[in-house]
Amino acid sequence: MDYRFSKPFASMPQGGGGDVLKMTADPATIPFAAGNPSAETFPLKELRAIADELFQREDAPALFQYGQTEGYDPLRDFLRQRMAQKHGTGRPEDELMITGGGQQAIDLFTRMMIDPGDVILAEDPTFMGALKTFAFDGARVVGVPMEPDGMDLNALEDQLRQQKNVKFIYVITTFQNPTGYTTSMEKRREIYALAQRYDVMILEDNPYFELRYSGEYVPPLKSLDEDGRVFFAGSLSKILSPGVRMGYAQANRQLIERMAQSRMASDIHCNLFFQAVAAEYFNRFDLDAHIAACCQLYRSKRDLMLEELAAHMPDGVAFSRPDGGLFIWLALPQGSNSDQLAALAAQNGVAVVPGSAFVPGGCRENPGVRLNYSTPTEEQIRRGVAILAQCTRQVMGK
Amino acid sequence: MDYRFSKPFASMPQGGGGDVLKMTADPATIPFAAGNPSAETFPLKELRAIADELFQREDAPALFQYGQTEGYDPLRDFLRQRMAQKHGTGRPEDELMITGGGQQAIDLFTRMMIDPGDVILAEDPTFMGALKTFAFDGARVVGVPMEPDGMDLNALEDQLRQQKNVKFIYVITTFQNPTGYTTSMEKRREIYALAQRYDVMILEDNPYFELRYSGEYVPPLKSLDEDGRVFFAGSLSKILSPGVRMGYAQANRQLIERMAQSRMASDIHCNLFFQAVAAEYFNRFDLDAHIAACCQLYRSKRDLMLEELAAHMPDGVAFSRPDGGLFIWLALPQGSNSDQLAALAAQNGVAVVPGSAFVPGGCRENPGVRLNYSTPTEEQIRRGVAILAQCTRQVMGK
Repeated sequence: MDYRFSKPFASMPQGGGGDVLKMTADPATIPFAAGNPSAETFPLKELRAIADELFQREDAPALFQYGQTEGYDPLRDFLRQRMAQKHGTGRPEDELMITGGGQQAIDLFTRMMIDPGDVILAEDPTFMGALKTFAFDGARVVGVPMEPDGMDLNALEDQLRQQKNVKFIYVITTFQNPTGYTTSMEKRREIYALAQRYDVMILEDNPYFELRYSGEYVPPLKSLDEDGRVFFAGSLSKILSPGVRMGYAQANRQLIERMAQSRMASDIHCNLFFQAVAAEYFNRFDLDAHIAACCQLYRSKRDLMLEELAAHMPDGVAFSRPDGGLFIWLALPQGSNSDQLAALAAQNGVAVVPGSAFVPGGCRENPGVRLNYSTPTEEQIRRGVAILAQCTRQVMGK
Repeated sequence: MDYRFSKPFASMPQGGGGDVLKMTADPATIPFAAGNPSAETFPLKELRAIADELFQREDAPALFQYGQTEGYDPLRDFLRQRMAQKHGTGRPEDELMITGGGQQAIDLFTRMMIDPGDVILAEDPTFMGALKTFAFDGARVVGVPMEPDGMDLNALEDQLRQQKNVKFIYVITTFQNPTGYTTSMEKRREIYALAQRYDVMILEDNPYFELRYSGEYVPPLKSLDEDGRVFFAGSLSKILSPGVRMGYAQANRQLIERMAQSRMASDIHCNLFFQAVAAEYFNRFDLDAHIAACCQLYRSKRDLMLEELAAHMPDGVAFSRPDGGLFIWLALPQGSNSDQLAALAAQNGVAVVPGSAFVPGGCRENPGVRLNYSTPTEEQIRRGVAILAQCTRQVMGK
């Protein structure tokens, strides 16, 4: 039969994320495309011991029954405390909920807020997974140019003034995907003030902020939140494991309670046993020490990739110097075709994501590509950057 | 700030499912309200041994990395084969995907299909979780009276003729929630023929069909599907564990591929390690033997509840005699108030779900309550039915 899909779904961009994951799954390909953390950071020995213990606990059957939609309380307690003590987020009127990765927090929030045609203002370029979510919910996404210290605030205010039905501003405040840029504290304050002035919400997506290995700490935008305007989406993918599919949302209690209701209409909750495993892991082991070990690994990989880029890339090509996270943004000169570069690199065994995937509203050529350094080995970084530099020369006609 | 929710979300019914789970979580309450399988059926010893083994396998880190959105292949293979061999579903053009419970299969399908205002024809009464999902997606749900052998077909055809923009017919074909009724093979054929004639799809929600402990086997409606019209939502909650949050969808490949794309915009995939644990469990142990043991347990609980209902309920009260699944429907005489009965029972320590929760379109009084017999102990069944009978007399003024 001919399927009649919903309007937003029918017009949702196909490809993108899933294809990137599939491409990266080919072991022969040098994986600069994915957003995967390094598998050597997964604390499998510790998780194994805890899982085995939990299976034998008297309340083990309860961990295989239906659980609370808001999440397993000991895990929520740990994250609530950590966010309060280390990052200054969470006021008495806030609540925290466990979600299926940070992505599901974005999805549930967007579904609560967006009617078809409503506007989201987003950094340009921005995370393609969020663009998919926004499209699925029928939002119209308007881009605001991203600068090395955050959104162009004049452009943001112009859009707030011009656009009707703006529901929220979407920002990835720290080590942004795809650019690696971090929004400065000053700009965080100004974005918050603008959101107040125009009475819109802020969706702060912050999956990488724990992975800082240089530069000065910047607290989450959520820590400025006085009136329940900021919805914070966090992730355990980069500090524990992405395969466990766990993240968290922190927001005004009213929003979280309603979000839990909405999740009863979706997947109900995350794997309960693994929420308990994660809670035990965090309570028994020193998460800061684990993160420090991750950072040490990623720092050396980032440094290596930056060195190799500096050594091999032709003149006219710039790249970001992120203080953390997983991504470097390779900016080609205006007029260069990054889709062409990504295709050529793929033919030569290097997977990268072209800038066009990150453009709100789609289509616009963005002359850059996103590079991930956490997944490849050091040898792959060396070989991959050399190949990529050759391909870049070819695309630039040098 | 004042939150401006999306229109469907703002008008979505609050309460219901989540509250039922919370109410049932109080150990002092006799739990006739939930849809939980019995915790003693969870094969924890086997899962523990498998988990421990998988943690030590060479490819263990890959089970903590991002995985395939469609699900872990060995688990998909197992379910695909089982469905083909035992239940006659899955044609060459069909595909199977792992989902976050059967509920997420319903949700992802509905989001793909429904624009605000589109119509879903559903059994009346029907599963309140699905009603929440449909409301969240802005669907208009029109009820078709449920009879002991399935939908009233004249009423179904009337609605197909009258309603505009019907996207699909929603049926829980076997041991329906909340009635316990099973749609006959003849009615399955006629529902399929009507769907063809009016060119609409069918969402077959079938989370209990493996739990048959009396009566004659009826194949899924999906087994009749010749033109990719039936979307099948299955669940592992009742044959493995609900806390692992795993189900599956089987449908035309085109739908499953697009659904995977849409899931990239939501929670991406289920806990990957536990998909592997489930796959190993199913491949090593005899699932039919496990299901037979579950059925033996549930059969004796069902029989006990039916006996107690027959012994204690006043004249004028009827109840269904399901051949499997988890629920008995207690039908009060017309004019009785089942909300009042549920409230009174709750005050007396027995949780049941009133019929009004299951009514498409909400509001209409449905003079019945849903009873679950899988969760309570035998002693709770005896005590609970006696209390409920007293409350029923009181509400009926006897």
